[in-house]
Amino acid sequence: MGYQPPVLVNLIDRLGTLPGIGRKTATRLALHLLLASEERVRALAESILEVKEKIRFCSICGNFTDEDPCLLCRKADRETGVLCVVEGPGDVMALEATGVFRGRYHVLGGALSPLGGIGPDDLRVKELLARLPRENVREVLLATGSSAEGEATAGYLAGLLKDKGVRVTRIAQGMPLGADLEYVDAATLKKAVENRREA
Amino acid sequence: MGYQPPVLVNLIDRLGTLPGIGRKTATRLALHLLLASEERVRALAESILEVKEKIRFCSICGNFTDEDPCLLCRKADRETGVLCVVEGPGDVMALEATGVFRGRYHVLGGALSPLGGIGPDDLRVKELLARLPRENVREVLLATGSSAEGEATAGYLAGLLKDKGVRVTRIAQGMPLGADLEYVDAATLKKAVENRREA
Repeated sequence: MGYQPPVLVNLIDRLGTLPGIGRKTATRLALHLLLASEERVRALAESILEVKEKIRFCSICGNFTDEDPCLLCRKADRETGVLCVVEGPGDVMALEATGVFRGRYHVLGGALSPLGGIGPDDLRVKELLARLPRENVREVLLATGSSAEGEATAGYLAGLLKDKGVRVTRIAQGMPLGADLEYVDAATLKKAVENRREA
Repeated sequence: MGYQPPVLVNLIDRLGTLPGIGRKTATRLALHLLLASEERVRALAESILEVKEKIRFCSICGNFTDEDPCLLCRKADRETGVLCVVEGPGDVMALEATGVFRGRYHVLGGALSPLGGIGPDDLRVKELLARLPRENVREVLLATGSSAEGEATAGYLAGLLKDKGVRVTRIAQGMPLGADLEYVDAATLKKAVENRREA
């Protein structure tokens, strides 16, 4: 690639550090940006900088926000007393897209990972406990992932919350919708059988 | 998504206009940028702007460059007299990555597309003809794609160059390496049989 302008190589390198963007995709994106209008490219660069400048963490739920507390923590039409505990902001987005949960969120900022050196003190666990009396919480819905880390985190929190006088629930695990049994992994299928319910 | 900070929504929208980046990937990239270090994010935004500022088209070959003529047109160790005609800058990258071609390039800026309203005057065809005497060209290697448009462009150029006293060649078409016959499309397999050579 020695013949290429250094500024182009730079851009390809930097795009290539983004998650899920390999060298080929980075090259395609860089060439696209080269051909795109000045205006569109400038808007993208400014969006990137602006997001970094203006976005902070909500002091209540720990989600991203441009105002503290965030909109979801301030909104009057959300149910109080029910907290949905998730690993990260992407999980809040995913749940909000379903529209099924109408309570408040608590973002842990990750999941327990002994191998990764992430313990309870690295997550927003103390903040979660502090919210229980303050917000009269009656239910904590543990919506961490179904990975080993997500499961461990849910298990740890369930133990911690057991004697706090709140109902502790966990999102259901089983067959994803639209899936064929033969294509679902064994662990999921096992869980789906174990968690079977009356039809 | 009404609860999300507008600057974040903006960024997701703009990332989502990039080729091959859907809403989900755009969201993942935006969240990644939110969590990435200030320094890395700034570097990416600056790279994007810089590329747009500094990159122009080479007046000889039509490829992207930060200096005119571009490095490949200036380089003394490249063979002169052999021109490789390609559709776009990505094709130059792909060929340079193989290291097999040591001559000079000519970037058309697209391919003929009657449906898309792209005719010979929209491509750098005049510029190609002007290079023939100026650079004592003895061979033009037509390396446009194997799509209908690429084929039409190669056919058009082959006709145009027939009486210009240069050898006109076309990159070979046949089985991609590592492919099984049963998984290759019929058109490719047909071409591979037609183009068979002595073993």
